Amino acid sequence: MQKFPGYNFRDESLLEMALTHRSVSASNNERLEFLGDALLGAIVAGKLYDRYPDLPEGDLTRLRSSLVKRETLARLARGLDLGDILKLGEGERKSGGWRRDSILSNALEAIIGAVYLDSDFDTCKQFVSGLYEDMLDEINVDSITKDPKTALQEFLQARKLPLPTYSIVAEEGQAHQKKFTVECVVARLDTPIRASGKSKRNAEQAAAGKTLKVLMSGIS
Amino acid sequence: MQKFPGYNFRDESLLEMALTHRSVSASNNERLEFLGDALLGAIVAGKLYDRYPDLPEGDLTRLRSSLVKRETLARLARGLDLGDILKLGEGERKSGGWRRDSILSNALEAIIGAVYLDSDFDTCKQFVSGLYEDMLDEINVDSITKDPKTALQEFLQARKLPLPTYSIVAEEGQAHQKKFTVECVVARLDTPIRASGKSKRNAEQAAAGKTLKVLMSGIS
Repeated sequence: MQKFPGYNFRDESLLEMALTHRSVSASNNERLEFLGDALLGAIVAGKLYDRYPDLPEGDLTRLRSSLVKRETLARLARGLDLGDILKLGEGERKSGGWRRDSILSNALEAIIGAVYLDSDFDTCKQFVSGLYEDMLDEINVDSITKDPKTALQEFLQARKLPLPTYSIVAEEGQAHQKKFTVECVVARLDTPIRASGKSKRNAEQAAAGKTLKVLMSGIS
Repeated sequence: MQKFPGYNFRDESLLEMALTHRSVSASNNERLEFLGDALLGAIVAGKLYDRYPDLPEGDLTRLRSSLVKRETLARLARGLDLGDILKLGEGERKSGGWRRDSILSNALEAIIGAVYLDSDFDTCKQFVSGLYEDMLDEINVDSITKDPKTALQEFLQARKLPLPTYSIVAEEGQAHQKKFTVECVVARLDTPIRASGKSKRNAEQAAAGKTLKVLMSGIS
């Protein structure tokens, strides 16, 4: 009999199925993953809605994406030592499937679906809240809501990295219909990131935003 | 005081907000739409999971997409005469915003979010179930799970439309690395739809699948 951290399954076959990768059996965790992914999205949306009554929809959407993306889920799954109890086919086991982000995050979503089927929405919500407790406290809302240049600067400073440099690479159009193209260079990325805008400032903000997005998707 | 079909709001300010487009006020329905969209996704996922115990994850995902996409939501919103009670800014009202798919579907999602906040998940689930009752009964699962050529043929027959014709428009490559390109022509669409495959049959199936997708997105 298998216990799972944070929730005791009444119907253990649900936990069993949630842990079973498709490399093992036709009765695997893919359908539960479909269900759990959707529930996770709703639960995290509800938590962010309550927690940040002043954030506009766009910021809520960005925050949610960062909380439910594969890398984040894989990190949470590792915190639960999910890799140790996953059921994988021999090929997947030998090739290290138990440490692959995709397999771990899918299994965690499947477990969320299984908790819901085994109990109800509120219990599932509590389970998810438990998972995300620390992470929600760590959220740096400023980095999502501040203007992109400030946010990028603070992001780099917090990691003791050099500040970005901006340079104009193109300036087109007549007086009132100018288009500026700017490159943003940061030490972490090999290629400069370009963006355009109607003013130098707009172009820089756009380039900073793009750069921050690339950096954030690679890290947290 | 405003009643809403299918649910009586205790807190009517939630309904008010759900009906308020951003063209009216900073206190509009965008945050509720964020919440409602996520809840809708989870509720529909749960209903499909229960209703189709044998469908694999990919089919469930496709079914869900067709049920929660903008056009479907706008149709449901029209069934509730949502356009008549929307609060729009003058510009949007004059340009016919009350009949635009995007505005209608966003408002319906916002209402789903508002119902949840006003009650609980199970009540919200009942409300959504009521909305989708007829549509769920109409779902043609076969058209999603059958092979694309068969599904396309049946789709057209059910609507008393002429059958599709397929023709090879290109055949490239050497004996064991052939690539066939096929065009599928149906009466409903102006342009033939092309797809490629390693055999004539593969290319036809791919073209049929694409064609069915286009037809379905225009209809349901």
